[in-house]
Amino acid sequence: MKSAAGLYKPDPNLDLVLDRTVDVPREMVWAAWTQPEHIVHWFTPAPWKTIACEIDLRAGGKFNTTMQSPEGENYPNFGCFLEVVPNERLVFTDALIEGYRPTEKPFMTAILTLESAGAGTRYVATVLHRDEATRKQHEEMGFFGGWGTALDQLVAYVKAKLM
Amino acid sequence: MKSAAGLYKPDPNLDLVLDRTVDVPREMVWAAWTQPEHIVHWFTPAPWKTIACEIDLRAGGKFNTTMQSPEGENYPNFGCFLEVVPNERLVFTDALIEGYRPTEKPFMTAILTLESAGAGTRYVATVLHRDEATRKQHEEMGFFGGWGTALDQLVAYVKAKLM
Repeated sequence: MKSAAGLYKPDPNLDLVLDRTVDVPREMVWAAWTQPEHIVHWFTPAPWKTIACEIDLRAGGKFNTTMQSPEGENYPNFGCFLEVVPNERLVFTDALIEGYRPTEKPFMTAILTLESAGAGTRYVATVLHRDEATRKQHEEMGFFGGWGTALDQLVAYVKAKLM
Repeated sequence: MKSAAGLYKPDPNLDLVLDRTVDVPREMVWAAWTQPEHIVHWFTPAPWKTIACEIDLRAGGKFNTTMQSPEGENYPNFGCFLEVVPNERLVFTDALIEGYRPTEKPFMTAILTLESAGAGTRYVATVLHRDEATRKQHEEMGFFGGWGTALDQLVAYVKAKLM
């Protein structure tokens, strides 16, 4: 199957991009992103928590998480993987759930790409929205802080537990 | 990349399935479904027409068509391929457009599978909806007649032009 890698150029009106180089190997970033037992340790910026995660790591497979607010309220999220290229590229969306069934109110598609950068990893998360209002809403929800803090947590977790 | 083939079992409350065996080879069914110059000849039950089609045949690539009513009104449709396995399996959705960008109001995902059946083809189109109301709306729009008539048109076109 041809991949859509390279097909996509971010649109500054519709997309948000976090592009950082971190000092952990990409195989470990990949492991942290694709195994539920790792996800729960870093995925949600504290004091929020990710308390459950289900992953079926293939195109069409589920990517479901449950987040918990500091007040103890649970927020389930349902999504579906679109592309899975180990250690390189992970694409998922909440426009579809497991088996590609459409959802009612899609919010985003995320494209994560990993490249080796010396002993570390260039980490690029591109998040696509359907319109400018949704992109703005995500930015105001704290995209840069949120995804950035989660990445800091991922790096700290990898260093403490996987290296 | 692992495929989601076999992952999916139709849900009678949410899905519509057209399962027929036709007497043309599956390579020709595949060609008719994946090349714009063929699509315009059979895709829409007459007296409706498909007057334009753009296809980028890969996961994440566009599948856009413009349909025209008997009164001459144009209806553009935008979608995206999710899986492309030549002569076997084609998955596309309107929950996403080219590059996997989410859309505002997803209607369906379609999974087309082709198997050789003697000199012909077993043709199974499974259409997934987000809820029972949407499935029912599609059924009332004439899913079985519409997709069935389009398939009759496809077979007639293949016999006249591709065999």
